[in-house]
Amino acid sequence: MYIPTYDDVQAAHERIRPWIHRTPVLTSTTLDRMSGAELFFKCENLQKAGAFKVRGATNAVFSLTAEEAAHGVATHSSGNHALSLSRAAGCRGIPCTVIMPKTASQAKMRAVADYGGEIITCKPSLEDRERTLEALVERTGANFVHPYNDHRVIAGQATCSRELLEDVGELDAVVAPIGGGGMISGTSLTVSTIAPDTRIYAAEPQNADDAYRSFKAGHIIEDDAPDTVADGLRVSLRELTWHFVSSYVTDILLATEEDIVDAMRLVWERMKIVIEPSSAVAVATILNNPELFRDQRVGVILTGGNVDMYKLPWLTK
Amino acid sequence: MYIPTYDDVQAAHERIRPWIHRTPVLTSTTLDRMSGAELFFKCENLQKAGAFKVRGATNAVFSLTAEEAAHGVATHSSGNHALSLSRAAGCRGIPCTVIMPKTASQAKMRAVADYGGEIITCKPSLEDRERTLEALVERTGANFVHPYNDHRVIAGQATCSRELLEDVGELDAVVAPIGGGGMISGTSLTVSTIAPDTRIYAAEPQNADDAYRSFKAGHIIEDDAPDTVADGLRVSLRELTWHFVSSYVTDILLATEEDIVDAMRLVWERMKIVIEPSSAVAVATILNNPELFRDQRVGVILTGGNVDMYKLPWLTK
Repeated sequence: MYIPTYDDVQAAHERIRPWIHRTPVLTSTTLDRMSGAELFFKCENLQKAGAFKVRGATNAVFSLTAEEAAHGVATHSSGNHALSLSRAAGCRGIPCTVIMPKTASQAKMRAVADYGGEIITCKPSLEDRERTLEALVERTGANFVHPYNDHRVIAGQATCSRELLEDVGELDAVVAPIGGGGMISGTSLTVSTIAPDTRIYAAEPQNADDAYRSFKAGHIIEDDAPDTVADGLRVSLRELTWHFVSSYVTDILLATEEDIVDAMRLVWERMKIVIEPSSAVAVATILNNPELFRDQRVGVILTGGNVDMYKLPWLTK
Repeated sequence: MYIPTYDDVQAAHERIRPWIHRTPVLTSTTLDRMSGAELFFKCENLQKAGAFKVRGATNAVFSLTAEEAAHGVATHSSGNHALSLSRAAGCRGIPCTVIMPKTASQAKMRAVADYGGEIITCKPSLEDRERTLEALVERTGANFVHPYNDHRVIAGQATCSRELLEDVGELDAVVAPIGGGGMISGTSLTVSTIAPDTRIYAAEPQNADDAYRSFKAGHIIEDDAPDTVADGLRVSLRELTWHFVSSYVTDILLATEEDIVDAMRLVWERMKIVIEPSSAVAVATILNNPELFRDQRVGVILTGGNVDMYKLPWLTK
């Protein structure tokens, strides 16, 4: 297992810079008042393809040799990694095939197709996804880009907190959602290197608390297809992301489904930006734990904004 | 009738700068592709109080002498001017009373109250609003700040296109929604002074096309309480805004209710920002008239983002 270093992060940043946005950092008087903290929102919902995942996917695609690239790339993903990899493959002009659970949102499937990705659907379980993917890779020779358990992907995601720290300076803490752990691993890699005194919190839905239970137990505990509105966070840690989570994360904080939906609506209503439920988990945990963040400078990674506008969770509860 | 000058705009900008955001200008690959133009979105949805109206209201409040200010301010408004004036009055520490139609959105009424404004409701007609307002002013001596037919308000709104032109340089055209005409008057004042070759388009709902009919007829034609989803644009021109519209506007473009709702959802879905229906009118007219804007640099004023998240128009059609 190759563990990416901060040199890899710097190389990734140079490699992906032409293909991604340097996203803005927004602030909100209302959210500051409600949390008692000074919050800096890194807006990856405004990223190309609508999510941070374009960073890691683009780094992976543009790291390939010409010979590797000719066979294309493939992945399984519940959503944002799928469209990010499709977009990155399109930028390089190579084929991309995505295994998606048939429960994935129609909006995300349409977006993958718009970017030129080919979709193969599977059952919404880890096992079925991986089986389908392996058969595909064997058939086509495509380079498999795992959504998070991949050193190229983690080095790419790490560029997000690098920009955040460059833009706002010192922070007392950073909060990012955790699903498979790609973003929190990248965040850990950057923050532990260039801001080692900054605390790192992972935010997880209580209904998909496998990372929390893993963190407390000291080894990976997997969930299969947990039920949460935060559809980007239904997957489990793997060995590479577990390395970063177990080594660098200060704590994992939980939010209920109701907290997540309330935080999502609050951000839309007051900050006037569209965030997906996964992003709202980070906001919810901050509002839930004022004692941890009061009077502190806190970075919040808003990971994405890909939402089906016909299925808004505060209207379908 | 005092007609504000560009000197008034510069003075307004200095006066309000400590109390407002310099809002960002966003771009969108998707919207550029769909329109064939290069679009620069001035994001007043990210403005304090969620709309450009805070500019004019703040300019009016901070223009008052200490003696005038002691009596407070009052207005009638269907929404954003109401919360902007409440906020501005709160910044200066003076009372504010707002006459609101009882059909105004609950979200806007809550926001007015949150900013410390006192609300008196009236029937949703121009006559009833103005009658209620006059009685109030007589009773309290409050300074009446009309939502748009006021030189202080227009000079304030004019700071928006000043920032846009400073940030993006030369534009072939600017498109802004028109209701009572405050924003388009401010835009006209700035653009005709510092960018006289830039065309100025006003965007109006077909269901509330009184400005369009006035423009074609050459005199003000009033609508009373027209039915459109763009609730900020239900009011009619008055003498001061008519001066600017009749002198400087290139043309008035119309959009159907369906176009407005589609454009609103499109911006939320692809740009990941929350805009209200009034803002979407400008986007809809650009998509409707590709021959006017193809291959041109076009500024688009996204006027506000105050939306009731429980009443989204594409879900209630």
